[in-house]
Amino acid sequence: MISKQYRLDELAKQVQGEPVGQSDLKLKRLASLENASSDDIAFVNADKFLDLARSSKAGALIVTEQLRAQLQDVHQNFIVVANPYLAFAILTHTFERKHEQRGIESSAYIHPSAMISDSAYIGHFVCIGENCVVGDDTVILSHTKVDDGVEIGKQCFIDSHVTLTGECTLADRVRIHANTVIGGEGFGFAPYQGKWNRIAQLGSVRIGNDVRIGSNCSVDRGALDDTVIEDGVIIDNLVQIAHNVKVGANTAMAAKCGVAGSTVIGKNCVFAGAVGVVGHINIADNVTVTGMSMVTKSISEAGSYSSGTPMLETAQWKRAAIRFKQLADVPLTQFAKKLDHIQAQIESLESTFKLRK
Amino acid sequence: MISKQYRLDELAKQVQGEPVGQSDLKLKRLASLENASSDDIAFVNADKFLDLARSSKAGALIVTEQLRAQLQDVHQNFIVVANPYLAFAILTHTFERKHEQRGIESSAYIHPSAMISDSAYIGHFVCIGENCVVGDDTVILSHTKVDDGVEIGKQCFIDSHVTLTGECTLADRVRIHANTVIGGEGFGFAPYQGKWNRIAQLGSVRIGNDVRIGSNCSVDRGALDDTVIEDGVIIDNLVQIAHNVKVGANTAMAAKCGVAGSTVIGKNCVFAGAVGVVGHINIADNVTVTGMSMVTKSISEAGSYSSGTPMLETAQWKRAAIRFKQLADVPLTQFAKKLDHIQAQIESLESTFKLRK
Amino acid sequence: MISKQYRLDELAKQVQGEPVGQSDLKLKRLASLENASSDDIAFVNADKFLDLARSSKAGALIVTEQLRAQLQDVHQNFIVVANPYLAFAILTHTFERKHEQRGIESSAYIHPSAMISDSAYIGHFVCIGENCVVGDDTVILSHTKVDDGVEIGKQCFIDSHVTLTGECTLADRVRIHANTVIGGEGFGFAPYQGKWNRIAQLGSVRIGNDVRIGSNCSVDRGALDDTVIEDGVIIDNLVQIAHNVKVGANTAMAAKCGVAGSTVIGKNCVFAGAVGVVGHINIADNVTVTGMSMVTKSISEAGSYSSGTPMLETAQWKRAAIRFKQLADVPLTQFAKKLDHIQAQIESLESTFKLRK
Repeated sequence: MISKQYRLDELAKQVQGEPVGQSDLKLKRLASLENASSDDIAFVNADKFLDLARSSKAGALIVTEQLRAQLQDVHQNFIVVANPYLAFAILTHTFERKHEQRGIESSAYIHPSAMISDSAYIGHFVCIGENCVVGDDTVILSHTKVDDGVEIGKQCFIDSHVTLTGECTLADRVRIHANTVIGGEGFGFAPYQGKWNRIAQLGSVRIGNDVRIGSNCSVDRGALDDTVIEDGVIIDNLVQIAHNVKVGANTAMAAKCGVAGSTVIGKNCVFAGAVGVVGHINIADNVTVTGMSMVTKSISEAGSYSSGTPMLETAQWKRAAIRFKQLADVPLTQFAKKLDHIQAQIESLESTFKLRK
Repeated sequence: MISKQYRLDELAKQVQGEPVGQSDLKLKRLASLENASSDDIAFVNADKFLDLARSSKAGALIVTEQLRAQLQDVHQNFIVVANPYLAFAILTHTFERKHEQRGIESSAYIHPSAMISDSAYIGHFVCIGENCVVGDDTVILSHTKVDDGVEIGKQCFIDSHVTLTGECTLADRVRIHANTVIGGEGFGFAPYQGKWNRIAQLGSVRIGNDVRIGSNCSVDRGALDDTVIEDGVIIDNLVQIAHNVKVGANTAMAAKCGVAGSTVIGKNCVFAGAVGVVGHINIADNVTVTGMSMVTKSISEAGSYSSGTPMLETAQWKRAAIRFKQLADVPLTQFAKKLDHIQAQIESLESTFKLRK
Repeated sequence: MISKQYRLDELAKQVQGEPVGQSDLKLKRLASLENASSDDIAFVNADKFLDLARSSKAGALIVTEQLRAQLQDVHQNFIVVANPYLAFAILTHTFERKHEQRGIESSAYIHPSAMISDSAYIGHFVCIGENCVVGDDTVILSHTKVDDGVEIGKQCFIDSHVTLTGECTLADRVRIHANTVIGGEGFGFAPYQGKWNRIAQLGSVRIGNDVRIGSNCSVDRGALDDTVIEDGVIIDNLVQIAHNVKVGANTAMAAKCGVAGSTVIGKNCVFAGAVGVVGHINIADNVTVTGMSMVTKSISEAGSYSSGTPMLETAQWKRAAIRFKQLADVPLTQFAKKLDHIQAQIESLESTFKLRK
């Protein structure tokens, strides 16, 4: 694989930055300050990285003007921008190895009724069912299953071993990573006479524009209505979205989160890793939940929420844990009152005592 | 895809209910009260849904006689039953789009020694190994791997990208959802001289009748004896069942639960989402565990069990969390005693004092 | 499937043990004490299993000399070793059904530029991309995707439906279980103007020798530098390893663990099930973390660490949980001081009082 090279001024143009130094310097990679070599460009995002930047072997640095002033004694080549992190984010797309192929691999199975754009790519052993739609420039990698009635928009990226089922629909620029299941059956059972009676799930999943879902996720189809993931939502790996959940636009969920059935999550929320959310509740817009917290009731106010206990050495934790148990039977708030009461009694005793002197 | 239509009296018959109103009304979908149109039938399960039911555009409603009386001023067509939720559960199967195809897709690989029922369906790119058995009316969707020696009963449903290995056996009417792995190698290692020595797993997995396992689950094969999932167990997505676990009949586990090795779980238990269970313990029948709890020891009595802390605003949580840490060194139960002791001392002082007046 | 048989002395030789009794006894299976029959060999690991061993129908037992002495009245055939558990671990490999096939199944797709060892096995519907390398004696089971630029060493075992992407490299004797994704895109987004801007991930994943990763895991490629799993690491199912994490040699992680981005974990650590680790921290060598704990900051000392609360009956837990909330506003450590202060005041009062008598 021959990697492309880019000139310093060419890269500067892409990020609306100012090239400083050797404009025609050829750069092969975007690299970290630590591991960059003279063919590479790296970025410096804050003063705290100045030492690292000084000792970096990078051929060029993406910096602010203020950072450049502090680095020009040891480095010659820069791209000066207002926001180096954003410039870095943009340039990752330049250096990314893209899937250029178009067309359908001969080993894929496509149902005759499926409508596949000529500019799409369908990988080896992909299986596309009845009445499916695949939009322009969408890439579907090997072994993916697109079950009957599934519709995929334009410029989507579907990695290998993805299962798209339950007549789900994906809008444009959706990215689904490997081994994720969208539209699997929701977990609905009616208990009756000591058995679980399966409720066949008739709803679907609707995924908006620019949604990103990681690997090994499960997003279940709705029972009657649809499960909905709105535009711009980003979801990490191993996340569970149960039937009829609605995730509001631009909300982010880190790995291993789980949301139980029918819960409605607002826009612009941020859930850290392994957060669990019970079913049938509402979470407002702009809510942050810290890692491994359990959301057990609706949240109506924007803000940050938490549960759990801090990490301790196990020996110390065991003592604290026993005390947690004791709390069940300790009238904690009464203590404070009782202490105040006793204090008052003592003072009364003392003053009476003094009076009698 | 043309959806079938059903007459009101036809649907009533299926749920042993009484049709009220226009018997020959044609119904196309089972829908929620909110989203139903005049072609749809919806169900009303309790008084709290009466307002929703009144404003619903559903063509017909599944109700109790008592609910019908309260709705007949605005609705004309009903199916009257004793248990509308159960009737709904039954009718989901009527409206479900079923897999009707039978036979083996030409792209599937079937080992010559495998015995596949003529009434089974084997999807595209399925791979079935040596000495496998697939029973009558079983449906295996695309890309699934049925490894050597695996036996699958009748009327099972195995979704795409499932891996059945470790010579596991599935009884009848088992449903396994997409990308789940049954019979993968258990996590067994003998530490020796600073290394982990792999213990090859020789046991298998036995899955009973009417078991349902969601997507992206891992059920490991046993070390020597088998991992066992008894009849009627229902398991949601992203669940881990370690080697030699036994899950008792009709137990339900919500998404993201994990059970460590050799633990034995009773019948009719209900585990909410993300419950973790340590290895080598026993859990009685009829045990409920609330969401995200950690089961750290055997449970011998039926009942409900919990761990964790309630969700708080992060600022408040931080203060509580620091206090949790302090609990390790605070003699909580002594406080109560000490307070009582002090109170007694004060009263003694007061009374002595009074006597001397 | 006809299972092989082994003579007692043959098995004894494999574990450097001493055969006692009928040397040419034929043994078909390695079994648990409970389920062993006269064709089977079982192991006894400690005195607590003596009753089970006495009643076992096993044809032969793996024991220490000390255990043999206590069992020779009821059993005749033994293999005597210093460490029966290790002997058992070794013999599991003897009784394991191995994948003997070599070569490439005709249904596999192999890019012409890929270099596949003649002694490797490539299963049905496997897809191997441009410039990939597969080493000697490596077994890749059905449906696995080996994306462009991936390199796999010798004697590896890759189960079905695995996705190897992001130009990851696997050293020798690596085992990856079914439906796991190595090298998927890291979860990197630059927030800008209310949207999440994807940062294309340009790093890779490097997996050392003798690494074992379970089923349904996600190990993401790095942003710029690589995610690294060092030699001898063992990882159970459903584990998340985020971009740029480094896991030190011989560390073990049980199922459902998750490690956030850029965290560096030391050597010989043991994480129990469902442990969560935040990003950008360092964990020393030889750290143990108990089940479901949340590691929220760097750990610089070897030792055992925990978080969470103990399991209680739900009614008791609810009371304790309310008190946990109250802790936020209860000056716990002041209580002790206040109590001591009050005690001192009372004693002072008492002594003054006595002096005045």
